[in-house]
Amino acid sequence: MKGGGMEFELTKEYIEELKQFIADEDSNSARSKIENLHPADIAEIYDEISIDEARFLYLLLDDEKAADVLVELEEDDRERFLKVLPSEVIAKKFIDNMDSDDAADVIGDLPEEKQEEVLQHIDDVEQAGDIVDLLNYDEDTAGGLMAKELIQVNDEWTILTCLREMRKQAEDIDEVYYVYVVDDDDILRGTLPLKKLLTNDPRARIKELCKRDIISVKVDTEREDVAAVMEKYDLVALPVVDAIGRLVGRITIDDVVDVIREEAEKDYQMISGISEDVESSDSVWLLTRARIPWLAIGLGGGIAASVIIGFFEEEVHKYVGLASFMPLIAAMGGNVGVQSSSIVVQSIAGGHKQQSTINKLLKEFMVAMLNALILGGIIFGYSFLTGNSWPLTLSIAIAMVAVIIFASLFGTIVPILLDKFKIDPALATGPFITTSNDIVGMAIYLLIARYLFIILG
Amino acid sequence: MKGGGMEFELTKEYIEELKQFIADEDSNSARSKIENLHPADIAEIYDEISIDEARFLYLLLDDEKAADVLVELEEDDRERFLKVLPSEVIAKKFIDNMDSDDAADVIGDLPEEKQEEVLQHIDDVEQAGDIVDLLNYDEDTAGGLMAKELIQVNDEWTILTCLREMRKQAEDIDEVYYVYVVDDDDILRGTLPLKKLLTNDPRARIKELCKRDIISVKVDTEREDVAAVMEKYDLVALPVVDAIGRLVGRITIDDVVDVIREEAEKDYQMISGISEDVESSDSVWLLTRARIPWLAIGLGGGIAASVIIGFFEEEVHKYVGLASFMPLIAAMGGNVGVQSSSIVVQSIAGGHKQQSTINKLLKEFMVAMLNALILGGIIFGYSFLTGNSWPLTLSIAIAMVAVIIFASLFGTIVPILLDKFKIDPALATGPFITTSNDIVGMAIYLLIARYLFIILG
Repeated sequence: MKGGGMEFELTKEYIEELKQFIADEDSNSARSKIENLHPADIAEIYDEISIDEARFLYLLLDDEKAADVLVELEEDDRERFLKVLPSEVIAKKFIDNMDSDDAADVIGDLPEEKQEEVLQHIDDVEQAGDIVDLLNYDEDTAGGLMAKELIQVNDEWTILTCLREMRKQAEDIDEVYYVYVVDDDDILRGTLPLKKLLTNDPRARIKELCKRDIISVKVDTEREDVAAVMEKYDLVALPVVDAIGRLVGRITIDDVVDVIREEAEKDYQMISGISEDVESSDSVWLLTRARIPWLAIGLGGGIAASVIIGFFEEEVHKYVGLASFMPLIAAMGGNVGVQSSSIVVQSIAGGHKQQSTINKLLKEFMVAMLNALILGGIIFGYSFLTGNSWPLTLSIAIAMVAVIIFASLFGTIVPILLDKFKIDPALATGPFITTSNDIVGMAIYLLIARYLFIILG
Repeated sequence: MKGGGMEFELTKEYIEELKQFIADEDSNSARSKIENLHPADIAEIYDEISIDEARFLYLLLDDEKAADVLVELEEDDRERFLKVLPSEVIAKKFIDNMDSDDAADVIGDLPEEKQEEVLQHIDDVEQAGDIVDLLNYDEDTAGGLMAKELIQVNDEWTILTCLREMRKQAEDIDEVYYVYVVDDDDILRGTLPLKKLLTNDPRARIKELCKRDIISVKVDTEREDVAAVMEKYDLVALPVVDAIGRLVGRITIDDVVDVIREEAEKDYQMISGISEDVESSDSVWLLTRARIPWLAIGLGGGIAASVIIGFFEEEVHKYVGLASFMPLIAAMGGNVGVQSSSIVVQSIAGGHKQQSTINKLLKEFMVAMLNALILGGIIFGYSFLTGNSWPLTLSIAIAMVAVIIFASLFGTIVPILLDKFKIDPALATGPFITTSNDIVGMAIYLLIARYLFIILG
């Protein structure tokens, strides 16, 4: 973070000094070093120190801050940390000080027996009930993202009653962004802009002030759709209703930012051929495990290509020049396929579904044709000028055109099909497309060469 | 959008019906069809209709909604639309009804002469001044993202004065998320949680209630850093200060969500080999133009590889089996390189810079070694079992190990170097790495083969 207030940059010197204080068991110095930091900064420090050092620091924080830090920790750090703590401490020190959505996330990650133990140790029965409710929802739905804490007022109240009630409800809530208006059956009826609370007569009725055209999602809405709604309508908080429209929770934008980030990272991993969510700081073993599946598929594809090439051993032996352009043809098929599939995947993710499949393929065919003619023309010129034989020159140029067109259409149709069968279309940007295109491209190239050599001698 | 309130799904039938009303010049039916829609939904409709139809619909909207719709339009739709409008209409109908940040974005996209004309037609001098201020900031900085509209109170005031002032200021602002506290010199001193306004004695002084540990950014902070700060600290709005700490604006999370989305898309395009921001609905020519640069680099690389293979014509002629494994070796180098570089690029983007370059390379070397031994072992076994000669089997296996290690280290070091020289490291995930690895991989493979054939006969 550059400039502005509360600048904190985690330096090596900072960590070393802190570690020294911990080693000396100098609580006062250690505490003064961290007590003014934001929980997100403290969580970053935890990434850099051992579990015992982390435990020492934890005891120096007040309960509320300790809970906030726990929420900010990366999932595996948190699991490691909670594993060594008794259920009672988890319940009393942490869960009691968390919002219901964070509490449900933390508890949801615990082993099943421990979940129950922790729930039994929560003093606030209402909080425990909220968490149990939230644990029932699928993590990937609005129910799994929402928190139960919100400010709700009845549409029959006046501003004055409303302010009094809000003061009561606001105690549990960090930030107030919206006030939700419900009727006697808890059915969501609208929102009350804070501005109207400030600018109207205290005797005015909520009914007359509330904004009725409110956007909400159902508890079972998928999280990608939740993110799309909040992004499209620029919302900071989104109310969640049950099947009959009763207000049951609200989702805030910070949770949705995480969803957007995760979805983008998932697509990025897929296209870069990494099968698990890894970072460069993960262990050698984890990094290898995340990378080997695609490489193994690539290996299989390469072996398949070698078998195909084996069928054409005679041609390769006679016209050694054929071999020279194999990597070119293979690479071109792979590259074109990845381009096509990634454009389709992004258009599916962006929700632009107005174009029909036939239209998409027709357009892709035209783009491919244009690319193919330009690149085929260049390679034709190159091969001709460097004095390759006519059959070889023609083989390369025609194969180039054929491979580009095939790879484009294949790269377009596969993600569309995957999406139709409810499989993540991003799968098609990874190993599958590149490898298939490598193999098919090689077969096209060598078949064209075989027939041209026969015809043109 | 599934479930919840205000469900709106843009269907073909809807568009056709609307187009019919426009064709019939049936203003009342057309108006009733769109008047309850959210501006973001109306903007989606604009994507599907002609510019003349869009103009017809525009005249049916009240000024405020028309301005909101304009903000939601895609950039090129907006440009097309504004081109046909006189400067006075743009100023009076649209700009006057926008927040300063949106107004500056819209005006910033106009041709220079038109910008001045529009600015001169704005009635509200303060608004015009704000816009001129904002136009001076670089689009990619906090200044370019921020809006001038905010609620600010003096730290000497009481809650009562504060509420009175807020009522005045709130008129210009859609949603109030934070109240900023400044001193007499406009230096930002803290925020006032709305909760405290509701729950404290009206005579209490702001000074005593305000939260002092406030996070802010400077006007020249880059937008990626702004996004990182808001994401890390889960902020909904972020105050922007000038060089001496005076409050000059605020950035809201919806603008930052767009930044996060754009950055992710940029990286995704880079890795998929697309050089411009395109969508599947763009024109054939635009799509081709976005795709040909990488393909051309790939073509150049393929030609370079063919030249290298040419140097080994004798070996290929003697041992035709060598050619069979060329696509495998080339693909493996490319795949490994993309994996390595994308992991490094994500770790740079995520701000995890604690690891030194040497440590990163050492770790990458170990991961590469593990991958190389596993995959080298498999290909050794395969080649041995299918009865290839010893020199060929050994060449392939050793080349596989060498290529994987080279590609890993190269894929790791290139983005690190690019980042050091302030070039976007994501560049290394695209054409550069794959193509270099293809060429170098081929050279390594054939050199190893040449020497093994000499040694082993």
